[in-house]
Amino acid sequence: MRIGVLTGGGDCPGLNAVIRAIVRKGVDTHGHEFVGFKYGWAGVLNNDTMPLTRDSTRGILHRGGTILGSSRTNVYKVEDGLNKVKAAMETQGLDALIPIGGEDTLGVAGKLHEDGIPVVGVPKTIDNDLNATDFTFGFQTAVQIATDAIDRLHTTAESHNRVLVCEVMGRHAGWLAVYSGMAGGADVVLIPERPFDIDEVCDHLKRRHANGATFSIVVVAEGATPKDGGLLTQHQTTDSFGHVRLGGIGIILEKEIEEKTGFESRTTILGHIQRGGTPLAFDRVLGSRFGVAAVDAISEGDYGKMVALRGTRIERVPLAEAIAEPKLVDADLYETAEVFFG
Amino acid sequence: MRIGVLTGGGDCPGLNAVIRAIVRKGVDTHGHEFVGFKYGWAGVLNNDTMPLTRDSTRGILHRGGTILGSSRTNVYKVEDGLNKVKAAMETQGLDALIPIGGEDTLGVAGKLHEDGIPVVGVPKTIDNDLNATDFTFGFQTAVQIATDAIDRLHTTAESHNRVLVCEVMGRHAGWLAVYSGMAGGADVVLIPERPFDIDEVCDHLKRRHANGATFSIVVVAEGATPKDGGLLTQHQTTDSFGHVRLGGIGIILEKEIEEKTGFESRTTILGHIQRGGTPLAFDRVLGSRFGVAAVDAISEGDYGKMVALRGTRIERVPLAEAIAEPKLVDADLYETAEVFFG
Amino acid sequence: MRIGVLTGGGDCPGLNAVIRAIVRKGVDTHGHEFVGFKYGWAGVLNNDTMPLTRDSTRGILHRGGTILGSSRTNVYKVEDGLNKVKAAMETQGLDALIPIGGEDTLGVAGKLHEDGIPVVGVPKTIDNDLNATDFTFGFQTAVQIATDAIDRLHTTAESHNRVLVCEVMGRHAGWLAVYSGMAGGADVVLIPERPFDIDEVCDHLKRRHANGATFSIVVVAEGATPKDGGLLTQHQTTDSFGHVRLGGIGIILEKEIEEKTGFESRTTILGHIQRGGTPLAFDRVLGSRFGVAAVDAISEGDYGKMVALRGTRIERVPLAEAIAEPKLVDADLYETAEVFFG
Amino acid sequence: MRIGVLTGGGDCPGLNAVIRAIVRKGVDTHGHEFVGFKYGWAGVLNNDTMPLTRDSTRGILHRGGTILGSSRTNVYKVEDGLNKVKAAMETQGLDALIPIGGEDTLGVAGKLHEDGIPVVGVPKTIDNDLNATDFTFGFQTAVQIATDAIDRLHTTAESHNRVLVCEVMGRHAGWLAVYSGMAGGADVVLIPERPFDIDEVCDHLKRRHANGATFSIVVVAEGATPKDGGLLTQHQTTDSFGHVRLGGIGIILEKEIEEKTGFESRTTILGHIQRGGTPLAFDRVLGSRFGVAAVDAISEGDYGKMVALRGTRIERVPLAEAIAEPKLVDADLYETAEVFFG
Repeated sequence: MRIGVLTGGGDCPGLNAVIRAIVRKGVDTHGHEFVGFKYGWAGVLNNDTMPLTRDSTRGILHRGGTILGSSRTNVYKVEDGLNKVKAAMETQGLDALIPIGGEDTLGVAGKLHEDGIPVVGVPKTIDNDLNATDFTFGFQTAVQIATDAIDRLHTTAESHNRVLVCEVMGRHAGWLAVYSGMAGGADVVLIPERPFDIDEVCDHLKRRHANGATFSIVVVAEGATPKDGGLLTQHQTTDSFGHVRLGGIGIILEKEIEEKTGFESRTTILGHIQRGGTPLAFDRVLGSRFGVAAVDAISEGDYGKMVALRGTRIERVPLAEAIAEPKLVDADLYETAEVFFG
Repeated sequence: MRIGVLTGGGDCPGLNAVIRAIVRKGVDTHGHEFVGFKYGWAGVLNNDTMPLTRDSTRGILHRGGTILGSSRTNVYKVEDGLNKVKAAMETQGLDALIPIGGEDTLGVAGKLHEDGIPVVGVPKTIDNDLNATDFTFGFQTAVQIATDAIDRLHTTAESHNRVLVCEVMGRHAGWLAVYSGMAGGADVVLIPERPFDIDEVCDHLKRRHANGATFSIVVVAEGATPKDGGLLTQHQTTDSFGHVRLGGIGIILEKEIEEKTGFESRTTILGHIQRGGTPLAFDRVLGSRFGVAAVDAISEGDYGKMVALRGTRIERVPLAEAIAEPKLVDADLYETAEVFFG
Repeated sequence: MRIGVLTGGGDCPGLNAVIRAIVRKGVDTHGHEFVGFKYGWAGVLNNDTMPLTRDSTRGILHRGGTILGSSRTNVYKVEDGLNKVKAAMETQGLDALIPIGGEDTLGVAGKLHEDGIPVVGVPKTIDNDLNATDFTFGFQTAVQIATDAIDRLHTTAESHNRVLVCEVMGRHAGWLAVYSGMAGGADVVLIPERPFDIDEVCDHLKRRHANGATFSIVVVAEGATPKDGGLLTQHQTTDSFGHVRLGGIGIILEKEIEEKTGFESRTTILGHIQRGGTPLAFDRVLGSRFGVAAVDAISEGDYGKMVALRGTRIERVPLAEAIAEPKLVDADLYETAEVFFG
Repeated sequence: MRIGVLTGGGDCPGLNAVIRAIVRKGVDTHGHEFVGFKYGWAGVLNNDTMPLTRDSTRGILHRGGTILGSSRTNVYKVEDGLNKVKAAMETQGLDALIPIGGEDTLGVAGKLHEDGIPVVGVPKTIDNDLNATDFTFGFQTAVQIATDAIDRLHTTAESHNRVLVCEVMGRHAGWLAVYSGMAGGADVVLIPERPFDIDEVCDHLKRRHANGATFSIVVVAEGATPKDGGLLTQHQTTDSFGHVRLGGIGIILEKEIEEKTGFESRTTILGHIQRGGTPLAFDRVLGSRFGVAAVDAISEGDYGKMVALRGTRIERVPLAEAIAEPKLVDADLYETAEVFFG
């Protein structure tokens, strides 16, 4: 078989492990050939390719980013997108596609499958918010980066009454904030699933410090929002470009906490460092297993599936299942996390 | 309730996370009191204790080792051991015990349960060879340490025809070698489950280098053994103390490979650094969840159980199930790992 | 002798190494006794102390922060400060003081020396802006943390035309930005010593991308300022509390670059993680050597001095020399750094 | 000018930073062209080259190893070596050479200079044993790797009376052992400069444990030797290949200590992981500065020199000075280190 591979959406440590595994297993065991499309679906639409061989995928296992590049292009939002995909596959002589990506990329994959294109997907989300798989690669690396940062914050609070705010990723789901908050021993964790009341947060902090705490660490997901929307609006209007972006909520919290509690407050915004750099061993192993499983599925003609981690096993699930709805922080885990707040 | 806590066996990153979680949840939610026994079962037998309170378990989440100390003492190998345990519990006014440990410690726990002592166990094994749980805390940290080492070895092989041997833990099971070998991109992985033929290993290395490889990395579990027992005996006799110990097989491989292939060979023996230091976030979260789950189980009087990770959930399983037999590297995983060797 | 020790100013990895070394050398070699003042000069003024013995300083070598706590209290800005210091020394039966700190703390130390108090200082500045010493402990750790962050940013720029801004510490001097920018391979480095023109910065970025670069990394010291003060004022007015604080310049750059170049721009603000956590070996060795040298100086009655690194040797310099003026980024180093920009 | 560049001897983190800096500064400022010789002097003798341009040296700053490869070939030990070098330079049209290496490589460079070849050297030694420069790149990275290992060992000693031996590099000089031993808080540090008495070492350990220590950490340089040569011979005879190699002394110590003290003893042999992987920021900056300085020197025709770090400045020193004799651990530093042993 001749198979096209592409990576879509934001960066995620472990992407290169997936690509290498697909090629290694595909070439050695199945005798396939591979074509890499550059910059996600954009490369398919523009017929922008690079060779994917054992040689071109050597030495990339531990490297962050993706050798294929990425983009947020959506085939079905482009005029005549489906036909362009078909044309690209014909030009390249492809039998099937393996797209690696998140909700959007897999959504396109699902539609392509319905439209008759042979496809097997590999799930990717730094936020851990994809259904149908226990974890995806990259998430544990991001959790570790955030935890390392929180660990460092812990030792810089020898002065009295300081509050350190650490803003982490998580637009729609707070997995990263909850995991790193638990691992780092945070005192407050704010997530998109549970809008917060700024006065309650500040009261909690004041109570902690009244009871002897000399510092507090607040972990906030970038997508966390106050119950009182006015709070955002108030800070939002101060932005001359008219929109709150990455980095917004951490700075807002810093200012509000400092004003309402009188405690000195400082913010760390981790930003893109959470998406980059060497993946943890966990994510390299998971990515490698996903890659092997995806090329095995495609070799068996088991199309329209996505590979998924279930317990310790890699399984195949329908693409449709994965993108049905986002996976939010589960109530049990949050309840356990709460034991350690305050 | 008043509950005794102890840690037995070798060190494992995440032990302190478990202890802290037990106390935090036990005190705040259930109103329990805790007594820490020092140096595992030895502390129970000698009535050697330390207080376990919110204060004494503060700031230990990220610390390696165990604040309780550990030992390999086995209650049932000590004269009148059971009665000494009963006496200690009476002296300390305890209602139940939470032992945290591996096969031995949990084996004792299982027998104590049969002998009527209220007990809930927390599984701990750096080697990942305990049944009934997907993972235990500490394993991912050890995998990461070994992977970091292998990553470093990769860049030191610019000269021609060098073989680097990295000896990792794993007396009876090769989980750590397989995971770190996959994550680090090793070319040969030798594990206890699969006795190796030294000539096959050397032929494989010679073939690799004949095909253009300039270096090879061999990951070997400390418990890996050659098919030809004579090989060990031959090197064994060279030991003036009459026994092969930690570090043995790596050095033997280095010498045999150098002699049989003519390639310069060097060994790294990671030894106890795999057991020490700051636990990864993964292991802190898992340890914290185990601790909370264990104290919940004991509060419900659900004795004779061990907490376990199943998929993404923490469940309770009978102690007997956990210690039935060691969990060896599963055939599927090894087959996936093999895709990347050579 | 009986000697008081205190740490003042912001946190700096390596402080505990200094404290441990003072005590270890002082007790073992000289037979001194030590008293630790808590929270810097505040502890001296309030007679707030803790014992400093071999036991109380054991196991702290690798720990960030300071076991003594810190503050920004200035003796000479407190009414009757000098007499309070004298009183505290009498109450505690002290023969001398070893203050560990930056410009402010050492400034107080210098005046106390002039006022007849026996004192030897240890220099501390995370920003590396103290004269009379080649380096202080903590700086290399901060450089490494920033470099690790920049390394991670490098792999997250696979999409077209992205600009990543990384704000690092450095209010008055750009040492940290220059070192981490050089080590991380930044494309633009903005420092307080050289006010920047936002249009020049944006033109430089546009030229880079026109010449084939797909991403750029901008490292900015928190104290860097635009030539056009109006730029700050414009963004300043958007702050409802009326002041620009830590984190300000990075966000401003992100917005301006995005508007002026059209390239997607994202900011990482490292904040206090640069001050915290385990010190690098370099800083532990330097801190240990400083501590030993300080207690040796005080034992010889060589007061009014500060210990300093000169080449590979620890020397003693007059306190006055250290605080004469801040050490700015040297022109030679900046010129070398510039080779790699763009 | 057209300039040849080569790297000789063992790997050292920071080599790629030097190469990149030479090319960047040479091309941008001086308009030079560069040829890379592969595998050290071997590439010169065999005319084995690769292009060195801005493009081929992009993205290598943070990578361990050397893109040029290395070897231990010595021009003057090869028949007609000098003429072969001259021939290679003529073939490649070279005006000068920049060899990057240690004692051997720079020794060749010195002789080539005497024989009329225009050459400027860059010092490289992971062991820090080259004279005429305060430090070389790679050393701090190796110190950090060893320190991280010792840190991990510290937390794995909760059981009674355990001795952990950590063998680090250092054949002729103990810099790495002393620095990492100081930074890691080792209890015994054995270096080549000071032959040890195994009975004294064991007595020291017994005394420590009699005084309450529960564990001890022994750092030993691979080149440390016992005063009693018979000790080595005794263990040497146990080697079926007739020679003691890397890893030898650590295992010998483990066995002797266990036998003579009765304390459980375990060894970690770091081996080549000390030479590999991402260089610290310190070493990247130093390597970059060395590269810039070397190409500046060659552009000025200041041949026969080596670049060197003196305090915070990069200077030029005669090649002859650098290789006169190895730089051994200085007495002052060792005395400071000794404060913390035991």
